[in-house]
Amino acid sequence: MGTVVIKFGGSSLSTTDKIKQAAKRIINIKKSGKNVVAVVSAMGKTTDQLLGLAGQITDNPAKREMDMLLATGEQVSISLLTMALTEMGEQAVSLTGWQAGIVTEKVHSNARIVDVKTDHLEEILQEGKIAVAAGFQGVTEDGEITTLGRGGSDTTAVALAAALGAERCSICTDVTGVFTSDPRYVPQARKLSSISYDEMLELANLGAGVLHPRAVEFAKNHNVSLEVRSSVEDEEGTVIEEEVSMEKNLIVRGVAFEDQITRMTVFGLSNEITGLPAIFSTLAANHIDVDIIIQSQIEGGKTNLSFSIKNKDRQEAVQVLEQEKDAIGFEHIECETGLAKVSIVGSGMVSNPGVAAKMFQVLADKNIQIKMVSTSEIKVSAVVDSDCMTEAAQSLHDAFELGVLQSAEK
Amino acid sequence: MGTVVIKFGGSSLSTTDKIKQAAKRIINIKKSGKNVVAVVSAMGKTTDQLLGLAGQITDNPAKREMDMLLATGEQVSISLLTMALTEMGEQAVSLTGWQAGIVTEKVHSNARIVDVKTDHLEEILQEGKIAVAAGFQGVTEDGEITTLGRGGSDTTAVALAAALGAERCSICTDVTGVFTSDPRYVPQARKLSSISYDEMLELANLGAGVLHPRAVEFAKNHNVSLEVRSSVEDEEGTVIEEEVSMEKNLIVRGVAFEDQITRMTVFGLSNEITGLPAIFSTLAANHIDVDIIIQSQIEGGKTNLSFSIKNKDRQEAVQVLEQEKDAIGFEHIECETGLAKVSIVGSGMVSNPGVAAKMFQVLADKNIQIKMVSTSEIKVSAVVDSDCMTEAAQSLHDAFELGVLQSAEK
Repeated sequence: MGTVVIKFGGSSLSTTDKIKQAAKRIINIKKSGKNVVAVVSAMGKTTDQLLGLAGQITDNPAKREMDMLLATGEQVSISLLTMALTEMGEQAVSLTGWQAGIVTEKVHSNARIVDVKTDHLEEILQEGKIAVAAGFQGVTEDGEITTLGRGGSDTTAVALAAALGAERCSICTDVTGVFTSDPRYVPQARKLSSISYDEMLELANLGAGVLHPRAVEFAKNHNVSLEVRSSVEDEEGTVIEEEVSMEKNLIVRGVAFEDQITRMTVFGLSNEITGLPAIFSTLAANHIDVDIIIQSQIEGGKTNLSFSIKNKDRQEAVQVLEQEKDAIGFEHIECETGLAKVSIVGSGMVSNPGVAAKMFQVLADKNIQIKMVSTSEIKVSAVVDSDCMTEAAQSLHDAFELGVLQSAEK
Repeated sequence: MGTVVIKFGGSSLSTTDKIKQAAKRIINIKKSGKNVVAVVSAMGKTTDQLLGLAGQITDNPAKREMDMLLATGEQVSISLLTMALTEMGEQAVSLTGWQAGIVTEKVHSNARIVDVKTDHLEEILQEGKIAVAAGFQGVTEDGEITTLGRGGSDTTAVALAAALGAERCSICTDVTGVFTSDPRYVPQARKLSSISYDEMLELANLGAGVLHPRAVEFAKNHNVSLEVRSSVEDEEGTVIEEEVSMEKNLIVRGVAFEDQITRMTVFGLSNEITGLPAIFSTLAANHIDVDIIIQSQIEGGKTNLSFSIKNKDRQEAVQVLEQEKDAIGFEHIECETGLAKVSIVGSGMVSNPGVAAKMFQVLADKNIQIKMVSTSEIKVSAVVDSDCMTEAAQSLHDAFELGVLQSAEK
């Protein structure tokens, strides 16, 4: 009998009514002849409430104790969902992270899974029962409760699917699948029936927000067939899998974009060899994420360096770099805010050198100025004015015919 | 270095401010040179909120899942209290029931502790840290989360104190100790400095409500020195210990009372041998607690049987007995409600046969009619009209001079 892992996020479990809906979905899968392992997050606002309580006690809680506190959130969800399943006539058993065999490294608040001990889970499935496991949490070899950090419940679901050799891992969310672009901005956007892990990774990193990149990576490494689908509606979602089945002529699979981007330029870097690492290690030490990096030689042997960061980090970035001005060795810093990044993603791109050229042409035809460019094997990103973001995304979506069902898709 | 176990109930932890107060009390004990293990219940209304959520899903939750759900309550408390201790500069570690080594039988919602594995706890204490353990919960040998039922956190505290060979187990509550009677009704009531386990058991069973009888029994069996004290005020509480130190002339140590009692009389029981067990097993099967039982022979070989129950159980008791009328074999049932039970408790009583006589005389002097009587080695109870309850309690309190500090007390 095949096994399906199905994961419900906090917003899909925010009320007891939604918990009952989730239970119905699980029972449908069970009745189709599958073993089912449900993985759940904390109910809706539970995590925020727990953080609020901790905040009343200390501004600086020990990470171990935050893990202890937050782990109660999923424990409430598993028991309530199991009650709902039982009330509907199914046999079900709830499992905390440690009961589900999720073993992590000894790191609090952001632990990585090192092992999944499936004996207990498999026993439950063999007895014909539904297993309801707490996402986001695990236990170290010496019995300390840990949590997995952002995207933790997705990661738990994928890890259990990998360990159990499940035929599918469904991630139930607020959306019905992965789209060619954000339908709020690009009305022609269309749900994809399938997408590769790498494409999903680029889309996730670009802020599609449907699936945490960590879970996608885990799924890719263990070849777990992932599905993103609605927790409420019955329609099929998007399957994320190896790209074998969909190579052909799908050059571009999606258009992603995000605004609130700042371009920062460090002028007159005196020593490129020491200056470059000094800049980025200073930023990293202050937890400032850098995205696109462009370096340009100027006269007199000096270098200018541009990179993009999030608007919210601008002030701090300037401050920490100015503090290290002498050590790094640069002349001055300039910032341009009000920018956005528009990217086309598709694994066919690597063998189609004309894709980037076509993208630049489309933007040029719309008189949209490109401020920065970055390319990877399956992505081309252009930084443009925020005002042009939506037009750029729509034009690219049209030019690459993403609104039309592709012949390689089933 | 001596070890002290200190337990805080839910009302002592109902807000983050109260959690901070509890932390201060713990730190005071730690600074006096003791190892400290704190045992905590769920915060204030948490349990009710969790029960409310479960109630929205099912009227009949599986006990295993209720345990899973309710166990989150103490887990929130241990993490918050540990954060508060850390914020105040102490090293502290929170422990769930299973991490604290509380092993129970495989029974849900009302499990008994079968073992306490103290290795981990002792390690923490040896490192000079404060251990904060979740009360009320444990784990079976095969890793199932259980809860201990009513009085569970008190029992956890006593069990840990016994296993660790602690010099004291302090139970912090809303009251400052155990009183000779309820001060709300008997203004002369005085806090006792000490009391024996058996006396405390009788007082607890009589509704003093300070300590769960199960915890007292556990303490008695393992000779744990218990202290009941205020969670807020600094004054000394009442110590519960073996009676060696206080034998002498303390014949009566307290006056307990409760109202809402119904006397039920089953008339014309045709066969006493089969009828008696039939009545009480019928009541027990319906979870109706019976207290005092009086049996009287009447003419014609038939028997009348009176017993006291709680008012709230009256209707159900009549109903279930009438259903079994033919099987049990009786003529009819009468009930008298509006009664109260007043009891004097003291371990000196067993060697002073005049105590009961004195009690009856005191009540007779006040024209208070006794409806039923029951005696044990350390208790005499009289059922009277509810209207007379307070007067009876006050008269007995005066007659046995409970308001005056006894010479045997220090």
